[in-house]
Amino acid sequence: MSRYFRPNIASMAGYVPGEQPGDEKLAKLNTNENPYPPSPGVLAALREATNQSLRLYPEPLSDSLRNIAAEVYGVRLENILAGNGSDEILSIILRCFVGRGDRVAFPVPTYSLYDTLVKVQDGELVCVDYPADFAIPPELHSANAAVTFLCNPNSPSGTLVSLTEIERLARAVFGVLVVDEAYIDFAEDPGSSAICLIQSTPNLIVLRTFSKSFSLAGLRIGLAFAPAELIAGMMKVKDSYNLNHLSLVAATAALQDLSWMQQNVRRIQQTRRQLVDGLVKLGFYVYPSHANFVMAQRKGQEQKALYQALRERKIYVRYFDTPELRDSLRITVGTPEDVERLLQEIGAIQKDSVNPF
Amino acid sequence: MSRYFRPNIASMAGYVPGEQPGDEKLAKLNTNENPYPPSPGVLAALREATNQSLRLYPEPLSDSLRNIAAEVYGVRLENILAGNGSDEILSIILRCFVGRGDRVAFPVPTYSLYDTLVKVQDGELVCVDYPADFAIPPELHSANAAVTFLCNPNSPSGTLVSLTEIERLARAVFGVLVVDEAYIDFAEDPGSSAICLIQSTPNLIVLRTFSKSFSLAGLRIGLAFAPAELIAGMMKVKDSYNLNHLSLVAATAALQDLSWMQQNVRRIQQTRRQLVDGLVKLGFYVYPSHANFVMAQRKGQEQKALYQALRERKIYVRYFDTPELRDSLRITVGTPEDVERLLQEIGAIQKDSVNPF
Repeated sequence: MSRYFRPNIASMAGYVPGEQPGDEKLAKLNTNENPYPPSPGVLAALREATNQSLRLYPEPLSDSLRNIAAEVYGVRLENILAGNGSDEILSIILRCFVGRGDRVAFPVPTYSLYDTLVKVQDGELVCVDYPADFAIPPELHSANAAVTFLCNPNSPSGTLVSLTEIERLARAVFGVLVVDEAYIDFAEDPGSSAICLIQSTPNLIVLRTFSKSFSLAGLRIGLAFAPAELIAGMMKVKDSYNLNHLSLVAATAALQDLSWMQQNVRRIQQTRRQLVDGLVKLGFYVYPSHANFVMAQRKGQEQKALYQALRERKIYVRYFDTPELRDSLRITVGTPEDVERLLQEIGAIQKDSVNPF
Repeated sequence: MSRYFRPNIASMAGYVPGEQPGDEKLAKLNTNENPYPPSPGVLAALREATNQSLRLYPEPLSDSLRNIAAEVYGVRLENILAGNGSDEILSIILRCFVGRGDRVAFPVPTYSLYDTLVKVQDGELVCVDYPADFAIPPELHSANAAVTFLCNPNSPSGTLVSLTEIERLARAVFGVLVVDEAYIDFAEDPGSSAICLIQSTPNLIVLRTFSKSFSLAGLRIGLAFAPAELIAGMMKVKDSYNLNHLSLVAATAALQDLSWMQQNVRRIQQTRRQLVDGLVKLGFYVYPSHANFVMAQRKGQEQKALYQALRERKIYVRYFDTPELRDSLRITVGTPEDVERLLQEIGAIQKDSVNPF
């Protein structure tokens, strides 16, 4: 590595995203994309906006999107920041609240980008192991962190913690609490979101993305909900024109057709039941999932060979090669056909194998 | 400001972008947008890409764009990083090379975002005054900075420094030299770009944007060109999916129709001559411009009243309220009609005024 880099950058590994192969025949169950298309209203709005006005800069503060989001989520404009995916908002949060050596805490295993972002910012990682049931680990309350992350529902487990637990955590932590709700629309109880807590909780930031339930991973749109004072400071750090015009248009149109998203969510919840039932019959333990993926485990038995066998059969799932996750696979809830094919292939692979995986 | 923010964030002011009013009757000569639309090929490619595949994540490394950019600019894939506007690349550079208290140097006046980004990163600002002719100030060579910025052509002056001077500066500085070529396509000499120097200069990063010459400010696309070792490290810091799918498609299509861009550049260069001639006749000194804007000065005479009078007449230009720029206006080269209207209005305002501005 060139001598010009900061030591924390030179020594770190980058984040490794799930594979994005172009093969159409693939059952792509590895990166939690929605199997259903975005709303026709979104596509129509995009086509209409594809004109010569793209020569102009977009709205710097994404006000048209924030206005409708304020209405949909029952908050005020000043409580919202729009980002180039929630990934950008995560990086804004690190830059706002974490200096060199400041502590950032989160329970693990979870979304591995948190780890990468802490290293970029040269902060101090405090990783606290989740208990077996993926409840909030008590040590997280006293980790003395400038930022605490809670992915809820969590990835890769799909598990959900309650609003009561989140409130208690927010009151206990030293700095800000970031609840990353990328998957919350898929939760069984629609009242699971922590957005309703931001008015009463001065250190709470809730993140949403349009990549999952709204079927817009390709357009990189995220929202942060927080007390106005936190949003005002985060606005200073974001790039002036961080959201491009077409993503703005798409997100606005998506919020104008909530029922399309909700219908897709219901289909995915139904297919999730089919997937869980099938996996249980095949001998897996499946964590209770509130996301558009499930974590399937065979306690203590490495699942790498199954992951690779599925890959050869053009079914991609996510395998994390770490000590605590080697006995599990994270599987996106695709279409009913994808799930049927996956279950059949696992069954076939198990029969072919002398030792079942 | 909430107690949770880092002190450098709490105390800083955010970057203030130029106004983006929606009024159609406005002559918008304040933010250096291209008055001509993007290539029809770009719009066609965008419409074709507006389909259900937006549910999928985009290419993480923007390879399709980097491949064609490598061909167009005569470098290799490994020499290119694509960003969500060159603004994102600037912020990646700060996070890669600048820790708390590290020095960042640049000549002033220049693009004021550099200042903001250094404050976000808690670096130490070293601002060196440009001489009257906007040549590289000698003190910049010995500023001992981890990062040195050179906007070339510079904003707001529009002036250009030569490749020989850039090479000398790159060899002299302590850290990396970033040459921000947002406006270089508008230079009189097409051989002015420093991209040709990256193979022989281990500490050089050259930035380009699609917001100006390619008429795509709305889509936020920037490119960095640098030695492979620098690009590899910067890749670790960028968000995994930093460029959305439609921006990727648009940028790729724009590079496939270079002649469209070049034709618009020639029109703008021609209108620039008309604008300069008119301003000189009206009594301004105009700095030699290699950009799609000019800086018009009346030495020692504040131009705020003229800026406001033009605003009332629905002509927006950029006025920077700082001691060294109060006697100047930065004016974007619009269409010939915009420029004609601007010149007539300035003439009329001067006649109305007892003391000409």
